[in-house]
Amino acid sequence: MTEPVYKKIEIVGTSPNSFDEATANAVAKAAETVRNLSWFEVVELRGSIADGKVKQYQATVRIGFRLEEE
Amino acid sequence: MTEPVYKKIEIVGTSPNSFDEATANAVAKAAETVRNLSWFEVVELRGSIADGKVKQYQATVRIGFRLEEE
Amino acid sequence: MTEPVYKKIEIVGTSPNSFDEATANAVAKAAETVRNLSWFEVVELRGSIADGKVKQYQATVRIGFRLEEE
Amino acid sequence: MTEPVYKKIEIVGTSPNSFDEATANAVAKAAETVRNLSWFEVVELRGSIADGKVKQYQATVRIGFRLEEE
Amino acid sequence: MTEPVYKKIEIVGTSPNSFDEATANAVAKAAETVRNLSWFEVVELRGSIADGKVKQYQATVRIGFRLEEE
Amino acid sequence: MTEPVYKKIEIVGTSPNSFDEATANAVAKAAETVRNLSWFEVVELRGSIADGKVKQYQATVRIGFRLEEE
Amino acid sequence: MTEPVYKKIEIVGTSPNSFDEATANAVAKAAETVRNLSWFEVVELRGSIADGKVKQYQATVRIGFRLEEE
Amino acid sequence: MTEPVYKKIEIVGTSPNSFDEATANAVAKAAETVRNLSWFEVVELRGSIADGKVKQYQATVRIGFRLEEE
Amino acid sequence: MTEPVYKKIEIVGTSPNSFDEATANAVAKAAETVRNLSWFEVVELRGSIADGKVKQYQATVRIGFRLEEE
Amino acid sequence: MTEPVYKKIEIVGTSPNSFDEATANAVAKAAETVRNLSWFEVVELRGSIADGKVKQYQATVRIGFRLEEE
Amino acid sequence: MTEPVYKKIEIVGTSPNSFDEATANAVAKAAETVRNLSWFEVVELRGSIADGKVKQYQATVRIGFRLEEE
Amino acid sequence: MTEPVYKKIEIVGTSPNSFDEATANAVAKAAETVRNLSWFEVVELRGSIADGKVKQYQATVRIGFRLEEE
Repeated sequence: MTEPVYKKIEIVGTSPNSFDEATANAVAKAAETVRNLSWFEVVELRGSIADGKVKQYQATVRIGFRLEEE
Repeated sequence: MTEPVYKKIEIVGTSPNSFDEATANAVAKAAETVRNLSWFEVVELRGSIADGKVKQYQATVRIGFRLEEE
Repeated sequence: MTEPVYKKIEIVGTSPNSFDEATANAVAKAAETVRNLSWFEVVELRGSIADGKVKQYQATVRIGFRLEEE
Repeated sequence: MTEPVYKKIEIVGTSPNSFDEATANAVAKAAETVRNLSWFEVVELRGSIADGKVKQYQATVRIGFRLEEE
Repeated sequence: MTEPVYKKIEIVGTSPNSFDEATANAVAKAAETVRNLSWFEVVELRGSIADGKVKQYQATVRIGFRLEEE
Repeated sequence: MTEPVYKKIEIVGTSPNSFDEATANAVAKAAETVRNLSWFEVVELRGSIADGKVKQYQATVRIGFRLEEE
Repeated sequence: MTEPVYKKIEIVGTSPNSFDEATANAVAKAAETVRNLSWFEVVELRGSIADGKVKQYQATVRIGFRLEEE
Repeated sequence: MTEPVYKKIEIVGTSPNSFDEATANAVAKAAETVRNLSWFEVVELRGSIADGKVKQYQATVRIGFRLEEE
Repeated sequence: MTEPVYKKIEIVGTSPNSFDEATANAVAKAAETVRNLSWFEVVELRGSIADGKVKQYQATVRIGFRLEEE
Repeated sequence: MTEPVYKKIEIVGTSPNSFDEATANAVAKAAETVRNLSWFEVVELRGSIADGKVKQYQATVRIGFRLEEE
Repeated sequence: MTEPVYKKIEIVGTSPNSFDEATANAVAKAAETVRNLSWFEVVELRGSIADGKVKQYQATVRIGFRLEEE
Repeated sequence: MTEPVYKKIEIVGTSPNSFDEATANAVAKAAETVRNLSWFEVVELRGSIADGKVKQYQATVRIGFRLEEE
């Protein structure tokens, strides 16, 4: 079997500034330990509040990467 | 009963600039009248268009806050 | 029948910078060929990754516009 | 912050006659105590049965209204 | 065990006139062969078109009824 | 290839009176420019409010029609 | 055709004590009239309230059973 | 009332070969005991694995059939 | 208008012991400030973990209550 | 603006043989009138039944294609 | 980048007694091999049946844990 | 604790021929590195297009396997 096969993992990135940055942080962290990252899908946006203001933007992303040939 | 209990309210924040700001505006407005805001969940992103451009970003967020002891 | 009727189309905008810009790009592109754009709804946020970083933010938006009288 | 902010509440209207009337009743009841009602979204349609006939049409609607400036 | 137990069945009613009537027809038909009908939930609204006009309104409803003691 | 193929478009009909009429208006408007309309699916029911009353019922419907042979 | 085929039915069990018991009651009731029950899926949890307390836990479960050879 | 009314039942077909065959098996089995089968909707695709290979494709289908006049 | 109208609020109950107790706590807390509570719907089950064990069961419930005549 | 923008259309392909072929037929038909087709997403699988057997497999697919520069 | 990042894994716990225990078992098993478990989300409740009774409660939970600094 | 516990992983298999083969490829690839694979659930079907034809069928499957005793 030589057809490409991918795996998805689910990562929650955070940022004090924006959902874009939270997403980018999730991807960057995954890249520390996984190779061949290919695409991501945002599945949830939420966050924490402190003193009546957004304290942390949180983006849950599913990240797909190609599995290497054995 | 002394276990913490929370309530969620649903607020739609708006911004001419970004979904992040729309989200932040929703939280800030809720903070004017409710105490103990703890977290938020984005449940819908939409907006209005004028002259072929995004006029307003709208973020519907559910905001959770701890109910105080009676 | 003179009640207003709208049509929705589904456009995927992209941006190297943010979901807000991807959304705005989708709306701007639709405005090139369709008149009376009125509102949009974000239905999916995803993107591509290259070299372990977000390469492209992608926002799928449904865009509504009023159909003109025949 | 002067951007408009809205709140949504969830009301279940009922009617012996139709879902339209159940929806209208939900809106009318909300208007008794809340100002600036702006739009509604139907989120559930159900009802009760008696003697093998529809006894009550029930429409659950989320109703949005603009929060006033403090 | 004497706690009440219910069963739900899924029926599609039709009407040339309205979704309310389609719903009522589904309930009435179920009542011909099942006793103790108690409530219904609308799970889908669709229909057929002929000559550019709505020909048939179709309401898929889940109908709940209490199961009798053995 | 001679198997039938269909396309779906998404139309929002409106009515001051009922969801049934809003649905019918969406279908009728689509029929002005598209032939072979075959079926519709209601995907969203919402509306606008004015003076504490329902001002406009809005029905978003996906309408399917058969594509003609090339 | 000798491949196994299953049917699912939807039952609502109730209990004054817990969702687990409501689920078990749904299964036990189905077993009174159907053989070969194999698995269940919880699709809804709700209940009734009286005097400010939970009066009845309700679990809607889809129950699968193998259809016998004709 | 002479408008057509339909009932849906939920059947899980299986096949060692494909989802298409699993679907066809579900329909064929239903046809053994129910008349007037009209359409089906696939609501879930899953299966079992043995020795690291797909052992059984499983297709859950809702099957609609017209109820006869009483 | 004399048809009954209900409002739903969304409460998150917690418990160190079970989802049933978390649900009951949500209802009990709502009953401290709202009258005529009638039914509840579980919309989310989650919780927190400490030292590798469930620390807190959390049940988000929508609680319906009848609005009184003005 | 030179970022790529895509449009999605929703097509229902049919086949007497399989969902794969129904999907392929939807794509092939779209290719008759649209250029730059890039990807597809299956959003619904259903079909018609005749004489107790599957008569037609139907696959609803959303098909994405890149919009050309104006 | 020093913002916290989390990963979610999906575990199915089982119990002959209750969904609470099935959930707790999923968390406890995950804790055997993963550190910093922080929260869980129940995404599915189902189970197996034997002799007309619930044999096994199954809870599918997504478990989040903080990724450590590289 | 001796109750069985399972883990699910999410794999995307591909095939130039069919969704069945894409699904089988996902399972086969997972079996290269994970033991005790037990079941799978299809969660998404999509694909790529080239020259107006389906180039690649893609099946996203969640695959469950039993975790071994520590």
